Amino acid sequence: MEQILDSIKHPADVQKLSISHLQSLAAELRRMIIDTCAKNGGHLAPSLGTVDLTLALYSVFNPERDKFVWDVGHQAYAHKILTGRRENFATLRTLNGITGFPKRSESRFDAFGTGHASTSISAALGMTIVRDLEGKDYNVVAIIGDGALTGGEAYEGLNYAGDLGKRLIVILNDNEMSIDRNVGAMSEYLSRIKLAPQYARAKKDIEGFIRNIPHIGDTVLKTAEYLKDGVKAAITPGGLFEEMGFSYIGPIDGHNIEAMQSVFRQIANIEGPVLVHVRTKKGRGYMPAEDEPDKFHGISKFNKATGEPIKNPAAPPSYTEIFSRTMLELGYDNHSMVAVTAAMPSGTGLKAFARQFPERFFDVGIAEEHAVTMAAGMAAAGAHPVVALYSTFAQRAYDQIVHDVCLQKLPVTLCLDRAGLVGADGPTHHGVFDYSYLRHIPGMVVMAPKDENELRDMLYTAVKYNGPAAVRYPRGSATGAALSDGFRQLEIGKAELLSGDGRGVVLLAVGSMVKQAVEAARLLNMANIKATVVNMRFVKPLDADMLGWLLERQPELMVTLEENALAGGFGSAVLEFMADAGKKCRVLRFGIEDKFIEHGSCPQLLEKCGLMPQQIADRIIDNIGSGR
Amino acid sequence: MEQILDSIKHPADVQKLSISHLQSLAAELRRMIIDTCAKNGGHLAPSLGTVDLTLALYSVFNPERDKFVWDVGHQAYAHKILTGRRENFATLRTLNGITGFPKRSESRFDAFGTGHASTSISAALGMTIVRDLEGKDYNVVAIIGDGALTGGEAYEGLNYAGDLGKRLIVILNDNEMSIDRNVGAMSEYLSRIKLAPQYARAKKDIEGFIRNIPHIGDTVLKTAEYLKDGVKAAITPGGLFEEMGFSYIGPIDGHNIEAMQSVFRQIANIEGPVLVHVRTKKGRGYMPAEDEPDKFHGISKFNKATGEPIKNPAAPPSYTEIFSRTMLELGYDNHSMVAVTAAMPSGTGLKAFARQFPERFFDVGIAEEHAVTMAAGMAAAGAHPVVALYSTFAQRAYDQIVHDVCLQKLPVTLCLDRAGLVGADGPTHHGVFDYSYLRHIPGMVVMAPKDENELRDMLYTAVKYNGPAAVRYPRGSATGAALSDGFRQLEIGKAELLSGDGRGVVLLAVGSMVKQAVEAARLLNMANIKATVVNMRFVKPLDADMLGWLLERQPELMVTLEENALAGGFGSAVLEFMADAGKKCRVLRFGIEDKFIEHGSCPQLLEKCGLMPQQIADRIIDNIGSGR
Repeated sequence: MEQILDSIKHPADVQKLSISHLQSLAAELRRMIIDTCAKNGGHLAPSLGTVDLTLALYSVFNPERDKFVWDVGHQAYAHKILTGRRENFATLRTLNGITGFPKRSESRFDAFGTGHASTSISAALGMTIVRDLEGKDYNVVAIIGDGALTGGEAYEGLNYAGDLGKRLIVILNDNEMSIDRNVGAMSEYLSRIKLAPQYARAKKDIEGFIRNIPHIGDTVLKTAEYLKDGVKAAITPGGLFEEMGFSYIGPIDGHNIEAMQSVFRQIANIEGPVLVHVRTKKGRGYMPAEDEPDKFHGISKFNKATGEPIKNPAAPPSYTEIFSRTMLELGYDNHSMVAVTAAMPSGTGLKAFARQFPERFFDVGIAEEHAVTMAAGMAAAGAHPVVALYSTFAQRAYDQIVHDVCLQKLPVTLCLDRAGLVGADGPTHHGVFDYSYLRHIPGMVVMAPKDENELRDMLYTAVKYNGPAAVRYPRGSATGAALSDGFRQLEIGKAELLSGDGRGVVLLAVGSMVKQAVEAARLLNMANIKATVVNMRFVKPLDADMLGWLLERQPELMVTLEENALAGGFGSAVLEFMADAGKKCRVLRFGIEDKFIEHGSCPQLLEKCGLMPQQIADRIIDNIGSGR
Repeated sequence: MEQILDSIKHPADVQKLSISHLQSLAAELRRMIIDTCAKNGGHLAPSLGTVDLTLALYSVFNPERDKFVWDVGHQAYAHKILTGRRENFATLRTLNGITGFPKRSESRFDAFGTGHASTSISAALGMTIVRDLEGKDYNVVAIIGDGALTGGEAYEGLNYAGDLGKRLIVILNDNEMSIDRNVGAMSEYLSRIKLAPQYARAKKDIEGFIRNIPHIGDTVLKTAEYLKDGVKAAITPGGLFEEMGFSYIGPIDGHNIEAMQSVFRQIANIEGPVLVHVRTKKGRGYMPAEDEPDKFHGISKFNKATGEPIKNPAAPPSYTEIFSRTMLELGYDNHSMVAVTAAMPSGTGLKAFARQFPERFFDVGIAEEHAVTMAAGMAAAGAHPVVALYSTFAQRAYDQIVHDVCLQKLPVTLCLDRAGLVGADGPTHHGVFDYSYLRHIPGMVVMAPKDENELRDMLYTAVKYNGPAAVRYPRGSATGAALSDGFRQLEIGKAELLSGDGRGVVLLAVGSMVKQAVEAARLLNMANIKATVVNMRFVKPLDADMLGWLLERQPELMVTLEENALAGGFGSAVLEFMADAGKKCRVLRFGIEDKFIEHGSCPQLLEKCGLMPQQIADRIIDNIGSGR
């Protein structure tokens, strides 16, 4: 079938298209996005919502010259297809294929790489500053969702952009959703704006009134002037943004290409910062996604006809599911326990807790800093908060973990989901730094479970512990271990000897790498190499007794295994322990080398990182052979 | 002289005082604060500005029952004096004396520890949540400056507090200052509010108008209703806060105790979140501080009569001053260089650059996240930004350094001042984690100068380097080295052999510890122990050639020295290198142990940490003797 997409050799080619052709093109783009996501998984609903917006933008602005910063970037598939990646779009999110987010090294049309939320206004403002310094005049456009607008950095960006007054275009892509339904006063404010279609008419009426106020003396005159200013602010629906120094335009229909084109043509010439409020529907054009936009926010393979995910029925429950159930169980008995998340009630598995204990559940929006400090405040007032975040997003709250939680020794439990390699989302989302950024904070306990039962026990232990603790666990299926009843309180800082007696090769593993270590040990045994396997459980505090005992057995080689950066991680902690204790033994460290890891499936990436059992065994055998 | 302060045995005692007695007490508190700061240094201007506010708060609320969260906490000296710390106030900021910030372990009246900005609303909201869950009814009051309101976390807190609608009191302490003059659209908004005294009168007038709008049919009726809502928002001067779900009251005079008492009495019974906008004068009651509030924000010892700082005339220039001059020098030739700071133009020394190159200088307010992402945007557009932050505050931008700068390999130079132990400001402000939180980020270059010339060369090198780099240097005087002309471009990752040939004891030092290492080596030589001293310069990348060469010389002991956490820091990097290279040698690491370090003078703290040359030499001698 002849497609309009075939005629798009270059993004500027959309400028030649009529409205009806653009509408047809939008339908083609949606089909392509749905087809690819059904096969590869991906951020379907956000990208469907912005197809018309993308076309309106690229048919008015000049993608060759102007710069677009897509906040988070999970809504940029139409952008990718239109900017030279149509041919490769089928490789979306697969190893060596195109990435799921804008990426500078992938395309010159990706002006700024994104993945984490709320950065676009700041980045775009930086570009406008340099543009003006260099005397150039391209447009810079930040496209930010109402969800990302809950992040403090977005406000910091607005606050400074409004002050500087440079020519900057911010498109507020308002779909009333973060990943789940959006929260916060700002979100309610945006809803109020949308309820007020009469504003434009009201404006005219009241301006007439004011012109007719009798001017009896100075006071009334001044009053009238203030009134005029005040009323102007009031009857502009986006008064809040106007107060922040932005010209506000909207709300406009984000699926009406012609209406958007008309607005975009006007604003290209406005001086100073402009915010265009565009209303879109997440999942637009694919009924299952329109009906359940949260489910289709980021989705794995699904049946296009039904919208049903294609799941491996034999797959064990995910760590997230285990966390979800455990929180419910613990919540019944422990009334001081409260749960906090940052826009991830579904993703972290807290939705069940929220349903059962709505008064003890708090979704603060995309606001990790606030989430952690608020939790510290809760702990200071006598509660025990469990803050569930993705490992990569907890990076946002590093200072709050140091300054508000650990410095005050407050009982806050951090549950870091999606720790380690996350697969298709790639380098912006891998949670491979948490051991390194948490381990050096005084007073922090850092643990990682080997399987689902240990996750249960660790959560139980953390909630009983009167201080800061983090539990980190991977994305996806747990190990399939049979779930035990009840809970076991773990001794803080105590490891578990799984096999061996400390002679030969000692494998010290933590979290997801315990399973790999057990399998590697089996391979070593088959090669007649004695192997001891220890589930370390705690990256901090390390089990000094266990390590001391092992080292006294004079193993040939100590091996550390972690799904975390090697720099400053668990292996590094073992080296520190040994140096401080004056213990000598060769140490071979497995983990993530000092580079950003690209996207691909988790097994592919683990293999790239040399973390599959056979690779581990082979490298150990090599190392022993070389006798270094 | 009889003082009213003598009668204050308990904070609630202020409730019995008449206005005139409260005013006298305010004067007494100011004298005490001025006297102590003149001797000990401290946050004089902020604390003078809030004396009357503190008295108004504690004479209406019940400090025994209600909780106060002082944002940043540098304005809380009156609070400290009134809550049991009068006797010890002379020990302010001295070793084992009382701290300069609220601290939970110091007093039960310190509801939440602070030091970093913009956390108070989040923490206070956490407390209100637990209060309501527990069915209690104490008040929770966050006192936040207009400066701290530029921080994104404050907005995240407002956004969620406005949504939850819980009873929470936020006092906006508006002195139009951050440390320097406040910036941002929010700041301008607050100024506009203050220019509109007629609002209250206007409100009545327009409400009259609206009541008299003829109701002809539905449309006009609806218009009138919208108008009423809109106008209500417009004529409330704090419409922006109202839109965020807060009741706004203000602005009121923050030095009129009676006026504040009257407002506080009213709001104690308002449901939902309230923001009270209080106007104060920073430095109030001490002329030199009123005239130059930035100079007196945080000040060291000064002459009370003149306000002149008591300086050691022989002291060498500070690292900050060297940075300041170097930025000027480099700025003339390098036109792509831009400078960014987060509310610290004076503190970081960027004021000179700002005066010379105003168009290339950007103070974004207390907004470290935005500062770093904006810099990444600038770099993406072709500039080379230098972002000057304090080490401890750069913690706020950890995720942005990972995600926006390093992942994109963008040429952004981070200059981290106040790295290492900072002295009197204590644990909230020590910059002792930066090696650990930067070193594991792929692509990051981390360096620290041994003296002022090396700071110059490192800045020169970083600005020429086409990638992310951090230079960290300590607070206070540099070494007094004679300044050389011009600049030397350092080879990235190359160390400098200062003395010795690798046999005996090898001291690997970085930054401020190079000087200590040289002195320790002298002491070792006197004890007939051969010592080699290496200025490592780069914590990342490590000089593998130098380390390899040294290890081939088979030293008896390798010693690492850093003014940073031992966990994951420079010494840890050396251990990683040795383990990976299969090199064996005993390693003794000097640095900050795994605990938070209290306040005191820098030499006192260095001694507590065992980082003085004699201590270093002694421990090395011990270690060699024990032959471990």
